[in-house]
Amino acid sequence: MKTAITPTRAENYPEWYQQVVKAADLAETSDVRGCMVIKPWGYAIWENIQRELDRQFKATGHENAYFPLFIPMSFLEKEAEHVEGFAKECAVVTHHRLEPDPSGGLRPAPSAELEEPLIVRPTSETIIGATFARWVQSYRDLPVLVNQWANVVRWEMRTRMFLRTTEFLWQEGHTVHATAQEAQQETLQMLDVYADFAKHHMAMPVIRGEKTAGERFPGAVATYSIEALMQDCKALQAGTSHFLGQNFAKAQEIKFQNEAGELVYAWTTSWGVSTRLVGGLIMTHADDDGLVLPPRLAPAHVVILPIYRNDDERSVVLPYCNAVKAELEAQAFAGEPVRVRLDDRDLRGGEKKWQWVKRGVPIRVDVGPRDVDGGGVFVSRRDVGGKGKPCPRDEFVATVSQTLDEIQQGLFARAQAHRQKATVKIDHFEEFKEFFDNQSPGGLAACHFVDVPEIEEKLKPLKVTARCIPLKGDAEFDNDDGGGTCIFTGQPSQRRGLFAKAY
Amino acid sequence: MKTAITPTRAENYPEWYQQVVKAADLAETSDVRGCMVIKPWGYAIWENIQRELDRQFKATGHENAYFPLFIPMSFLEKEAEHVEGFAKECAVVTHHRLEPDPSGGLRPAPSAELEEPLIVRPTSETIIGATFARWVQSYRDLPVLVNQWANVVRWEMRTRMFLRTTEFLWQEGHTVHATAQEAQQETLQMLDVYADFAKHHMAMPVIRGEKTAGERFPGAVATYSIEALMQDCKALQAGTSHFLGQNFAKAQEIKFQNEAGELVYAWTTSWGVSTRLVGGLIMTHADDDGLVLPPRLAPAHVVILPIYRNDDERSVVLPYCNAVKAELEAQAFAGEPVRVRLDDRDLRGGEKKWQWVKRGVPIRVDVGPRDVDGGGVFVSRRDVGGKGKPCPRDEFVATVSQTLDEIQQGLFARAQAHRQKATVKIDHFEEFKEFFDNQSPGGLAACHFVDVPEIEEKLKPLKVTARCIPLKGDAEFDNDDGGGTCIFTGQPSQRRGLFAKAY
Repeated sequence: MKTAITPTRAENYPEWYQQVVKAADLAETSDVRGCMVIKPWGYAIWENIQRELDRQFKATGHENAYFPLFIPMSFLEKEAEHVEGFAKECAVVTHHRLEPDPSGGLRPAPSAELEEPLIVRPTSETIIGATFARWVQSYRDLPVLVNQWANVVRWEMRTRMFLRTTEFLWQEGHTVHATAQEAQQETLQMLDVYADFAKHHMAMPVIRGEKTAGERFPGAVATYSIEALMQDCKALQAGTSHFLGQNFAKAQEIKFQNEAGELVYAWTTSWGVSTRLVGGLIMTHADDDGLVLPPRLAPAHVVILPIYRNDDERSVVLPYCNAVKAELEAQAFAGEPVRVRLDDRDLRGGEKKWQWVKRGVPIRVDVGPRDVDGGGVFVSRRDVGGKGKPCPRDEFVATVSQTLDEIQQGLFARAQAHRQKATVKIDHFEEFKEFFDNQSPGGLAACHFVDVPEIEEKLKPLKVTARCIPLKGDAEFDNDDGGGTCIFTGQPSQRRGLFAKAY
Repeated sequence: MKTAITPTRAENYPEWYQQVVKAADLAETSDVRGCMVIKPWGYAIWENIQRELDRQFKATGHENAYFPLFIPMSFLEKEAEHVEGFAKECAVVTHHRLEPDPSGGLRPAPSAELEEPLIVRPTSETIIGATFARWVQSYRDLPVLVNQWANVVRWEMRTRMFLRTTEFLWQEGHTVHATAQEAQQETLQMLDVYADFAKHHMAMPVIRGEKTAGERFPGAVATYSIEALMQDCKALQAGTSHFLGQNFAKAQEIKFQNEAGELVYAWTTSWGVSTRLVGGLIMTHADDDGLVLPPRLAPAHVVILPIYRNDDERSVVLPYCNAVKAELEAQAFAGEPVRVRLDDRDLRGGEKKWQWVKRGVPIRVDVGPRDVDGGGVFVSRRDVGGKGKPCPRDEFVATVSQTLDEIQQGLFARAQAHRQKATVKIDHFEEFKEFFDNQSPGGLAACHFVDVPEIEEKLKPLKVTARCIPLKGDAEFDNDDGGGTCIFTGQPSQRRGLFAKAY
C-alpha cells in the first residue's frame, strides 16, 4: 500500500520522523547550526499547548514574568553541580560590537570585549535566583510563584527537530517557599499539571516518577518527570519538575526572616516543558500518512474542501461550504468554538487532500455538487483512515463536537494500549539484555533495582537508561509489589524502576 | 499636597518615571547590564497588549512562526545600509563552550571558538529573509504573512526601563508580496493596526506619518511610525512599519516566478512594536501618585479591599466582598469578564490602598461593616482622584462596565487635549528655536521643511529631531495647508513635518 510518508515507520523510524515534520509543515532547519525555524502550522500547535498550560499555571496561582536572556558567567560558578551540568555546551557572548574587518566584512571589535562573558541562558535558576534574593525578605513575601515563557540555548552536538535543538522554546516555573514541605508539594503539583495536560490534551499517556541520582537536574535534590513511550518503543522525557531544596537558595542567598524572627534560607523549585512536546505529539500519534493531531491541540478541527469543475458548480458549492463552516463554528468543543478552515486554493483536489492528511487535521470534509444536492457532506476522520463516508449535513454539524471527543479519547486509548503492551516486568538481567537487544523493539522494562552508580556499567553497553521510579499510586503504573531483588546488583530493592532506550 | 511618588513630574520627570516603574512594581534592573526584569504586574500589562495585537494580526491574515535567535555574522554584511544600522552595537557569540580557568572559575574554551561569530538578533530581516527565499518560489506562494513574538538585543549604552533596554520583547511582522503596491498597502495597513490599538486600547493618541530619510529603518525604502507625545512634551515613537522595497529581497535572494513565467524579486515589509509601549503607557497617563491604567490593558479592572478590625467583622465583610467580586466578574467589559482582585492580605489599610493606587487599577472598592449594613460599597476612581464616594452595591455592579468605558474614553480625551495643546504650527526658525529652548517644555512643532541632510545641522544643537511627516488625511493631524517655505533652508515645501525632542 502506498503511504504519504516515505520511508514508513517500520522501514526507518528516525527518517520517517523527519519526513513527517517536513510533510506536515511543522518546522525546518535554519541557516544557524542546530536551530530550527518553527513554521506557522507547527507554531500554532505550540500556541495551543501554551494557552492551555498557561491557563493551568494561572489557575494554580502562578504569575508570568520575564528575566534576562543573559547570565553573567560568574553566576554559573556559584552552584557547583549546576556548573558541571550547564556550564559546558552553551553560547558565550564575549563582545558587544562588530567593526569592519581590514580584510573586508565584519569582525567582533577587539575594543568591545566584555569584561565578563555572558552566557545565553540554558536555564534560568541562577539569574532568577539572584532576583528572588531581592524579592524575598520576610515570610510575608512567600511563596513566590513565577513562570516565564522563553527561549533557551544549549549547544547540542546532535540535533533533531523539536526533540533536541540548540535553541528551543519552553516555560520555566520558579518558586520560593518557606518550608521544604511546601516546596515539595509545589514540585509534585506541577508534575501533576504536566501529567494531566499530557493525558487530556496531548492524548499521550505518561508515567509520573522520580529520576535516579544520575539523571537528576544538576543542583536539584530530587527531579521528577513525566515519561512517555513513543511508537518505536523508545521513551521520551516530556516534562520535569525539580525540588531544589536549599541548594540554589544558598548559592544565590535567598534568605528570609521567618515568623520567629530568624534569618533562614528559603526552599525553591523549578519545572519546565518545551517545544519537545511537539516531538512527543508526533511520535505518539503520527502514522505512515503523516501527522495525526489530537483535536484539543489541532490548529484546525475540521477542514472543508470544496470540489467543483467549473464556475457554475463553484457558485453552488462555495456558498454551501461557507454555510457549513459557519454552522460548525457555532458549535463548541472543549469550551471553545470549533476551529474550521475552508481551503479554496487553486490546487488539484488530490494534492490538497493529502496536504491536510499530512498535517493531521482530525476531520476532513469534501463537498461537491452532488453533496449539495443531497444536503450532505463527505466526512473522513484522520484517526481511523479508510475512505470516509457521506453524512447528512445537519447530523454532521450536530455531532461534530462528540466526534472530536471520540477522536481525542480514541487516540489516547490507542497510545495507552501500545504503552501497556510494551511495558514488561523483568526480574533477571539476562532477560533484560534480551529485551533490549538491538534486534528487538524493546519497550519499558519494570525492574527491581537499587540506585547506585555501579548499575551504569551494565546499562551503558545496552544504550538503556533508567527513566524513573514511578510514584506510588500513579494511575498509569502500579509499582507496589512488595519489593524484590535488584537485577543489576542482587541487592534487596523496595520498588521497581522503569528502564528504556530514550530520546 | 503630599504625593505617592517623589519627585513629582514637575520636579524631575526622568526620576519620576523611574519611581513610577518601581512603585507600580512593573520592572527592575537586573544583574545584567542594561537588561531588566519585567515583574508580574508589568508583564501582565504586556500580556494584555500581546493578546489584543495578536488578535488583530490574525484578523488581518497573519500567522505566527518562530525564527532563530542567532544570525550568522555574514548575513548582516549582505544589506549595506542594514550593516551600518545594526551591525554596530550587538551581542556577539564567539564560543560554544566554557571550561575551567586555570586561575579558578570558568572561561570560554579556546578550542570551542566558532568559525563564524553569531549575532543575537537585533531584528530579524536577514535571517527571516533567508528563510523566505526558500519558501517563495512561485506567485502562488504569495503573499507570505508572518509575525513572530520574540526577544531582541541591541547593545545600548544608556538604558531606561521599558524605553530603551539592551534586551527587549517585541513582535516583528515580516511579509512578502508580488507587487510593490501590495507591499505598500500592507505597510500602511499595519500602521493603522498600531494606530487603532494605541487609540482604543492604550488610550494614547498617535499621529501616523512617514519618517524622514535620516530616521528611516536601515535598508528600508520608506519607514512609517506612530508618534505620541508624552506628558513632558517629548515625543515617543511607539511603533514602526517599513516598506522594504526589493532591498532585502535582493540581499537575501527572495525571488519568484510570476504569472508570466519570469523570475523576479519579491517586495517585502516589516513592522514592530515592543515593550517600549509600556513606557509610553506610563508617560501618557501616570500621575504624581503613580501608574494610571486604561481599563482595556489593566490586569485588574477593580480591586476590592475588605476593611475590618476583628474576626466578627471579618466574617461579615469577607463573604460580602466575595459576593461583590462574583457579581462583577459576571459583568463584561470590552467583550471579556470584568477582572477583579480581592486583596485580603494582612497589611495596614493605608499601605494596601496606596499599593493599588500606585499600580494604577482603574477602580478601587473599599468595603467595611457599615457598607455591608447599608448594602453599599465605597468606590474610588483612579483617573479622577479625590476621595471616592459611597454607592449602592447593585448600582455599582450594574454600571461597572460603563464606568470602565468612561475611564477609558476620559484618559484618551485628556491625553489628546494635552497633545493638541502642545502642538504648534511654527513658520520661522527663530520661533522654532525659542519653542525648543531648554527653559520651555517644547512640544510638537509642525513646520514646513524639505527633507535634506542639511537641516540636521540646525536640529542637532537644539536636540530636536524630525518625528514624521503626517500622512495625508490623518485624523489626528491636518497636514493640508497648501504648502509653504522650509523654515530651515527657505526652499519651497509641500507639507509640514512634526519636530520634537524625543525618547
